[in-house]
Amino acid sequence: MYTSTQLLEKINQHIADLNFSRPPKGLYDPVEYVLSLGGKRIRPLLMLMAYNLYRDDVEQAYPSATAIEVYHNCTLLHDDLMDNADVRRNKPTVHKVWDDNTAILSGDAMLILAYRYLADTPVEYLKPVLDLFNETALEICEGQQMDMEFERRHNVTVDEYLEMIRLKTAVLLAASLKIGAMLGGATEKDAKLIYDFGIHIGLAFQLQDDYLDVYGDPAVFGKKIGGDICCNKKTFMLIKAMEKADMAQKEELNEWILASDFDADEKIAIFTDIYNQLGIKKLVESEMEESYIAAMECLDEIAVDNDKKKDLKELVTTLMKREI
Amino acid sequence: MYTSTQLLEKINQHIADLNFSRPPKGLYDPVEYVLSLGGKRIRPLLMLMAYNLYRDDVEQAYPSATAIEVYHNCTLLHDDLMDNADVRRNKPTVHKVWDDNTAILSGDAMLILAYRYLADTPVEYLKPVLDLFNETALEICEGQQMDMEFERRHNVTVDEYLEMIRLKTAVLLAASLKIGAMLGGATEKDAKLIYDFGIHIGLAFQLQDDYLDVYGDPAVFGKKIGGDICCNKKTFMLIKAMEKADMAQKEELNEWILASDFDADEKIAIFTDIYNQLGIKKLVESEMEESYIAAMECLDEIAVDNDKKKDLKELVTTLMKREI
Repeated sequence: MYTSTQLLEKINQHIADLNFSRPPKGLYDPVEYVLSLGGKRIRPLLMLMAYNLYRDDVEQAYPSATAIEVYHNCTLLHDDLMDNADVRRNKPTVHKVWDDNTAILSGDAMLILAYRYLADTPVEYLKPVLDLFNETALEICEGQQMDMEFERRHNVTVDEYLEMIRLKTAVLLAASLKIGAMLGGATEKDAKLIYDFGIHIGLAFQLQDDYLDVYGDPAVFGKKIGGDICCNKKTFMLIKAMEKADMAQKEELNEWILASDFDADEKIAIFTDIYNQLGIKKLVESEMEESYIAAMECLDEIAVDNDKKKDLKELVTTLMKREI
Repeated sequence: MYTSTQLLEKINQHIADLNFSRPPKGLYDPVEYVLSLGGKRIRPLLMLMAYNLYRDDVEQAYPSATAIEVYHNCTLLHDDLMDNADVRRNKPTVHKVWDDNTAILSGDAMLILAYRYLADTPVEYLKPVLDLFNETALEICEGQQMDMEFERRHNVTVDEYLEMIRLKTAVLLAASLKIGAMLGGATEKDAKLIYDFGIHIGLAFQLQDDYLDVYGDPAVFGKKIGGDICCNKKTFMLIKAMEKADMAQKEELNEWILASDFDADEKIAIFTDIYNQLGIKKLVESEMEESYIAAMECLDEIAVDNDKKKDLKELVTTLMKREI
């Protein structure tokens, strides 16, 4: 069995060695650019770790792991275009370096490339892996659509929000883990458990992202604090705050939400203050904690020696506690 | 064996019965809209006809035929966005009815849906069909990229142009036919022949499209005559004309190409006149004829009773002669 550090090294090397030298350069250069920006490679890593619970010949899972990472980066490329985001991983986004059409077409090519890697999944698993991948990719589109629709809605509920982040974020982590387990020969029961484990950690990660936008340490967080507040993003925290706010607080929040011209630091300070008054920090902390515990319960139930699960547990715990 | 009319009815019905009722509507309504606009369904029809050369249980090919049509419509959706086209099949395009982001995301969902239909290909053929589909879809991106790059280049050669239309148009017809033949159990030799048949008819169709832009009957053509001329599209005809033009003709063509403000009818008349002087009409006619003959030679060589090929021959001949 490999450590998570070894597996991460392996998959990083494998992705770095991918070759996109076929013409036209105008199509494939942006693909190479996006993949060279790095990122934590958390999805392919989780896939290899899940596979490694059952088998040691982890190279068998490389094609599907590559497919997941290429697919994930394709969604970032198109999402950045749709969100008109200028920067990703401290570098200009594809539609900034090239143009919108390049972002559309190279994103499409990346989606197809993901399927090309996926097609090299060991053939006896191809159909079930393809089915899960397809369903997951559609769900991610649905999550992105909901996210975009939420921007124009003012009555988003907590349940709707949790469903959106399940679709947009959690299902890909879950599918990565499940595909790894399937390829490793896990029972259906184990495969389902590891999928549910992925859903719970996915929800926890996204809630943590919302949380850190308000309570994170800017030096560690890597993004500007208060970004979600400034753009009125309907996060768990804002939705909960609107739910619990009294008339005066609701009015103040709404006033700032509708203001087109405002001092960002002032808005962030006022929102944070209201969140504090309403106990939102505690609320999101306990929601994260619940997801974390539910995830660990799934992991515990998987019919594999506890020793083997240690690294997976540690990785998730580290990621969850990274800046809290 | 079915007639092409029967097969077209069958696939039309099958596509009309597809169900996109899952939420969110904002994601799937544009997919349904695009598929409801119709079109000739030539690609799935060719697939069923190729399958029907070998077997009569054509329902076996429905999933792959649906995948090809959904994929093709996804490329139209994204191409229309990239080309900023307002109208498709006499209806406003998706980014006009909805917006750019909807066109991007619903197009992505359509690409994934295409793979979902493809995953229902009989499992013994899934891997080779998926491989061919992936390679073809990547080639189509490459063709679209070349097409966009040609807009900014003034030294496109005939060979480059033919390679671009092979990638952008011909390979999908060829792959449709080959997948049909593969699923029907054709030999590798036959599958290759029908693929090449598809390449030749694809080139012929596109050349005919270029030709009809200049010499078509507006009542039959369905598009405005001279559209390619007005936007300086580097078609076979313009490239050939630039190649054969004398100094004065070249100067006149270039002057009109560079003019940002011009009378469209006058420009069309002048280009047509120069094409006539240079014998471009004959040139493109003989290029089309060559492709048509090469296609028929491939078809003739396929190891299937000539009787069975009659409909395929007739369909292609009708399509080729439609407005000449």
